[in-house]
Amino acid sequence: MARAGCCDKGTPEGGDALLMDVSLPAAVIHEAPLAHNLAWMQRFADAHGARLAPHGKTSMAPALFRRQVAAGAWGITLATAAQCRAAFVHGTRRLLMANQLVGEANMAIIGDLLEAGADVYCVVDSGANVRHLGRYFAARGLRLKVLIELGIEGGRCGCRDHDQVLALGEAIDVEPALVLAGLEGYEGVVHGDDPESAVRDYAWQLVEAARALDQDGLIEAETPLITASGSAWYDLIAEAFRDARLDGRIVAVLRPGCYVVHDHGLYREAQRGVLARRPELQQGLEPALEVFAQIQSLPEPGLAIATLGKRDIAADQLPLPLRRYREGGSPDQVLSVEGWRVTKLMDQHAFIHLPDEIDDDIRIGDIVAFGASHPCLTFDKWRQLLLVDERLRVRESLVTLF
Amino acid sequence: MARAGCCDKGTPEGGDALLMDVSLPAAVIHEAPLAHNLAWMQRFADAHGARLAPHGKTSMAPALFRRQVAAGAWGITLATAAQCRAAFVHGTRRLLMANQLVGEANMAIIGDLLEAGADVYCVVDSGANVRHLGRYFAARGLRLKVLIELGIEGGRCGCRDHDQVLALGEAIDVEPALVLAGLEGYEGVVHGDDPESAVRDYAWQLVEAARALDQDGLIEAETPLITASGSAWYDLIAEAFRDARLDGRIVAVLRPGCYVVHDHGLYREAQRGVLARRPELQQGLEPALEVFAQIQSLPEPGLAIATLGKRDIAADQLPLPLRRYREGGSPDQVLSVEGWRVTKLMDQHAFIHLPDEIDDDIRIGDIVAFGASHPCLTFDKWRQLLLVDERLRVRESLVTLF
Repeated sequence: MARAGCCDKGTPEGGDALLMDVSLPAAVIHEAPLAHNLAWMQRFADAHGARLAPHGKTSMAPALFRRQVAAGAWGITLATAAQCRAAFVHGTRRLLMANQLVGEANMAIIGDLLEAGADVYCVVDSGANVRHLGRYFAARGLRLKVLIELGIEGGRCGCRDHDQVLALGEAIDVEPALVLAGLEGYEGVVHGDDPESAVRDYAWQLVEAARALDQDGLIEAETPLITASGSAWYDLIAEAFRDARLDGRIVAVLRPGCYVVHDHGLYREAQRGVLARRPELQQGLEPALEVFAQIQSLPEPGLAIATLGKRDIAADQLPLPLRRYREGGSPDQVLSVEGWRVTKLMDQHAFIHLPDEIDDDIRIGDIVAFGASHPCLTFDKWRQLLLVDERLRVRESLVTLF
Repeated sequence: MARAGCCDKGTPEGGDALLMDVSLPAAVIHEAPLAHNLAWMQRFADAHGARLAPHGKTSMAPALFRRQVAAGAWGITLATAAQCRAAFVHGTRRLLMANQLVGEANMAIIGDLLEAGADVYCVVDSGANVRHLGRYFAARGLRLKVLIELGIEGGRCGCRDHDQVLALGEAIDVEPALVLAGLEGYEGVVHGDDPESAVRDYAWQLVEAARALDQDGLIEAETPLITASGSAWYDLIAEAFRDARLDGRIVAVLRPGCYVVHDHGLYREAQRGVLARRPELQQGLEPALEVFAQIQSLPEPGLAIATLGKRDIAADQLPLPLRRYREGGSPDQVLSVEGWRVTKLMDQHAFIHLPDEIDDDIRIGDIVAFGASHPCLTFDKWRQLLLVDERLRVRESLVTLF
């Protein structure tokens, strides 16, 4: 009988063959593209003189955090205090919480982490939050490093202009428990007719604001930081930070998250943009995450139902059938899914439209590998994902901490 | 320092006051409406002479399964073999897997459950699956109870007509390891200009098919079953099964899942339909599930950002702000959210449009209760949900087993 900790969907039942021993559906990460992506993005950051703090919210898998740090990452970015705790408890020492820290229960978590030796940064964008943090951490006799967020009009969080940034810098300056460590931004909410130009402009506004804070003597941390970048426009951010020649004084930190397993939708599209802008970046990121499920019903011509639902895979876009295998068969015998199209996703079922000529070839139990977009919303469906080699043998079970 | 099993978002940090001690965001179930819903649906089933096997996939929370069984449920419905295992390991003995059982790794799970004493039913709709199940369970010296699924043209799984049902009944009859136990359907995929009539028609088709199987002597189980019903049209199914006067011979089993916490969207709408059709069912289901999150940023007039995202709450429809409290304040001091509207949900952030006049009243850290639709996709974001009393004190942490 299995472990009782969870429903353990997608775990090997006494063997390591994905096409035979694993209870499907299961989420799978392919070893080779994972290793490629880890090295690729670290090389990219290094080449731009930037540190890499991959966004950990994507996977919340400590085994991946360890691989990212081993590949050279400066730290791990996280979105919440609870995520920071999970990462620290599992071995990540430097935590960039790229978000406002609100609520005393959450401040308590971060306070505990500081006492336990974590190196934590978080983000502020209001005087009210600065005062609350200042009061809380002073009462505990702790000092918290903060970054001021510069956002954009109509965007998400963040100060809306440089005056607000400087005023907030001064508010931090009078809170003994807070250490201003630099500037933070997120270009993923920049929109407009020409998003590429808008992102470039925003990157340079970040540079100017960071310089202004620094020149006003408001940055107390020994190593001032400037940090931005999601998974779509990281090349533009990295270029601006490199071209600003901050090296001597302000350290640039990039925070892409989805690169680790890439995807088959939004980010594959975004990566095409990166490679079009930067043709020298050969052999870009490769999709590494798939969900394997089985055909459970062939109820009428042209329709197959698979054991795959919103409980198993991201549903921002409908999943893509990629390949097919026979249950218990060899991973070398790849069957076609040409013309297959997912038309609907329910909680536990996928509806697949089949081209006419395939009906004879498909069987109940056939195993289909699906790709998805975006990866964050596939990871969070799973308590473990299976790392597999090129023979689809399970090498490791990667636990997630959502 | 907290337990290291997961990121433990939404857990009390050394106290039981939701508005002070709990790391937000947190998913909350209110005690009183939960108890009301549990009793309401059991009473509904009893009044129709039907058994209740609530769909457990909704919550995957064994503490709720136990309450459902204690309230009188006949068993728990589940969607996958892994879910059946999780439910059985945590105390549910009768498991209705309302889905096809495919894949030998999944058959192995069900085989283990049978050996451990579980009473399992699963669903078949193809000769290929019947033969595979027959071979597998014969080899293990076990007998598996199966229900034939009758679907609809253009629907999901299931036979498409009575001839297919009877042919499949005969295919089961020649598999010594399989015990035909009755008929299964799911009216949630019935559509059309007049869905109410279409669901009634479908319910009567199920009745006729079950009777035909029984009259042909194909149902081997001592207690033949007929089962259908999701959370939207259960009243029509229950009526048809009652009016068919099956009592003497075939037992009707209803399988709504979402009723347990109801919702603030799709199912609230559906419940209005039920109450319009059946005005004697006074005081219908009540929404019991909410997600509490905090205002983290007030970056420009008319815009608030809350610590609530697709990682925390169902996103089929945008969440509804319901009430607001001051952090650390009293649960009696409810602040207005009139005119508040969530306009966008990212992974970890909600964008809230505020009416003009409220800007003075709102503070960073304010706690907002959000409602959502549908509940299955909120439950699966959480490893535990907090059961709270009317004073918002945490009474119990309900673990989920996704």
